[in-house]
Amino acid sequence: MTIVTNRRKTIEFHIHKKSGNARTGILKTAHGEIHTPAFMPVGTAATVKAMTNEAVKSTGAEIILGNTYHLMLRPTAERIAELGGLHKFMNWDLPILTDSGGFQVMSLSQISKISENGVVFNSHIDGSRHEITPERSIEIQHMLDADITMIFDECTPYPATHQQAADSMRLSLRWAERSKKAFEKLKPSSSCGLSQDNSTGSMDSVQPKGSQNDKSGYGLFGIVQGSVYEDLRLESAKELCDIGFDGMAIGGLAVGEGQELMFNTLDYTCPVLPEEKPRYLMGVGKPADIVGAVLRGVDMFDCVIPTRSGRNAQAFTRNGNINIRNAKHANDTSALDEQCSCPACTNHSRAYLHHLVKAGEILGSMLMTWHNLQYYQDLMSDIREHIASDTLESYYQQVTSVYKK
Amino acid sequence: MTIVTNRRKTIEFHIHKKSGNARTGILKTAHGEIHTPAFMPVGTAATVKAMTNEAVKSTGAEIILGNTYHLMLRPTAERIAELGGLHKFMNWDLPILTDSGGFQVMSLSQISKISENGVVFNSHIDGSRHEITPERSIEIQHMLDADITMIFDECTPYPATHQQAADSMRLSLRWAERSKKAFEKLKPSSSCGLSQDNSTGSMDSVQPKGSQNDKSGYGLFGIVQGSVYEDLRLESAKELCDIGFDGMAIGGLAVGEGQELMFNTLDYTCPVLPEEKPRYLMGVGKPADIVGAVLRGVDMFDCVIPTRSGRNAQAFTRNGNINIRNAKHANDTSALDEQCSCPACTNHSRAYLHHLVKAGEILGSMLMTWHNLQYYQDLMSDIREHIASDTLESYYQQVTSVYKK
Repeated sequence: MTIVTNRRKTIEFHIHKKSGNARTGILKTAHGEIHTPAFMPVGTAATVKAMTNEAVKSTGAEIILGNTYHLMLRPTAERIAELGGLHKFMNWDLPILTDSGGFQVMSLSQISKISENGVVFNSHIDGSRHEITPERSIEIQHMLDADITMIFDECTPYPATHQQAADSMRLSLRWAERSKKAFEKLKPSSSCGLSQDNSTGSMDSVQPKGSQNDKSGYGLFGIVQGSVYEDLRLESAKELCDIGFDGMAIGGLAVGEGQELMFNTLDYTCPVLPEEKPRYLMGVGKPADIVGAVLRGVDMFDCVIPTRSGRNAQAFTRNGNINIRNAKHANDTSALDEQCSCPACTNHSRAYLHHLVKAGEILGSMLMTWHNLQYYQDLMSDIREHIASDTLESYYQQVTSVYKK
Repeated sequence: MTIVTNRRKTIEFHIHKKSGNARTGILKTAHGEIHTPAFMPVGTAATVKAMTNEAVKSTGAEIILGNTYHLMLRPTAERIAELGGLHKFMNWDLPILTDSGGFQVMSLSQISKISENGVVFNSHIDGSRHEITPERSIEIQHMLDADITMIFDECTPYPATHQQAADSMRLSLRWAERSKKAFEKLKPSSSCGLSQDNSTGSMDSVQPKGSQNDKSGYGLFGIVQGSVYEDLRLESAKELCDIGFDGMAIGGLAVGEGQELMFNTLDYTCPVLPEEKPRYLMGVGKPADIVGAVLRGVDMFDCVIPTRSGRNAQAFTRNGNINIRNAKHANDTSALDEQCSCPACTNHSRAYLHHLVKAGEILGSMLMTWHNLQYYQDLMSDIREHIASDTLESYYQQVTSVYKK
């Protein structure tokens, strides 16, 4: 079942320091290096919501995530490819990881059919009919010029019976193999014109104009599924290792199972993942979730929580959660977080942020989002320092106690 | 009827160059200098919508406008005073001009009574009952720590009969005199505690904490009314000159009368305004309106058009108006305006802006607003240069022809 990785495309991962199961490292991609453990802000529709790219970079983010599902529908992967790929389209010159579309096609669209071949669905925007197959997902991510491409999988719903989880996981395994083959096939030399067919998973797609696909630093990640069943997670991990990927993601978590079951799943899944490859816990999470997952050996994270919470008046701070809409902040001249270096904290008071949010001002969403993304990047920086000094366990206790208040 | 101006509070205005009726100059206020002719972005609720202060400053804006009506209702002038005044509250350290609340109380609120004393109305936010009198308006603007305070007037509706316009203008004249007295009375030494009474026009208000009201550089502007009737405009201007103000505004225009009648009104009003004082055309306007008004002797402008248009996909450019939502921009890699230095134009393509606006992304509002404000500041800079080189008439023809396309 093993397929040799196309080395020209491969990303590089170097581990610098291990502390228990946690590790710091550096991930080298076509568009730059990422210090791990890393948090990837979500840039769903080719923008991290309410943020300029300069603002995102100022927080320390070294990679963002783009959503295949949203981008394939609007403005379409073909248009982005024609305009030079996602980096050029949105003017983000650092690394981008794209998801496969699997999670969102199931959560946002109206599914009409899941089959061995893939998923047929109707767009949540205009009802138009589309199909994503493993081949089509990889093709789209190739057109977007993603530094890190994710295999197309089925995100197993939670809860699921053992049989449901097994069937879903094994479908994802078969899709994983097809994803790998599709990724290998899309070498720069195979370019022969822009695909005009949105639904057949054609392999005739072009390079994004001016893309860096002729350079090294592109990778494909597998995704371990199996719900909360240890035997299924181990089976999924083993089979994916046999296929061979540049990194391994853990999917199907943060879907309602709770932190204890999530940590439990990581406890038996991380040890069977390749030590030398990056591990990415998809869609996670709150600060304590992240620190706890790093303690178990995870290197990469993405989550909409900091951006979505920011647009909903919720701030993460070194003293816990703050709902800035609360009336107690109306006259408060202190900063949201005295230790934070973001513009919301250094230029403005809680009283002003409270006013902006109450008045429904866009600047409220902008500043609160900026703060939360700064908090998350500071959290990752703290995590890396605590790994370096072998003190991550005590940092986890500290973060947990702050957020239990 | 003459009241001596309190010199300690007075702003300074120096005219540098005259070209026909147009002039360049510099207006010195407590919080800084303003090069005229100047455009003031509107910061209604203590924020220029969708812009950080740094972004506003980067466009070259040297003064912004705050709205008394909005701020008195939320977060209240008393709260802003307690928090140090509007500059400190919103962290804008350059000059601020506040309107008197007169225009918006009539356009936004549910009026319950207009009398000789003032206006009683219900808030458009929560229905709460409030009163604005000339004394209360001046007190609010004092609490906001406005560099330039506007008299409280009635913005005469358009169209109005000669009698209606005369009655309204004369009521505004009586309010102008009361506004002047209230402004004179509010010397720093008269501070004696924060007013707890929102509706009586109490003179017991404090200085904003830490305000600069003990320095020079605060001024009060009169507002000429009289609709489109020459005799009434001249009567209003003469009476206001007799009362004596630090600058003269022209109100009651840009309310539906059209550019020709507006220019006609300026043609006979500007010549009877004091030559040595700044002239401010309220609520104007589109690019050609502004250039045409400068040709007639106006020095200052404010308008929501650049910000509101930006949030509605409309851009002003050196090649005329652009609706970025139009499908023809979907694949356009060119800049919104090739000659513009703003981030929307230097970092992004029309295709990307089109996508953001179609997807309803906040970044679309942010970038389009930024561009329009940059365009307006560049327009003012061009105007000042064309006055310096005695070529403003040809610049007017150029701007007019571009926007007639």
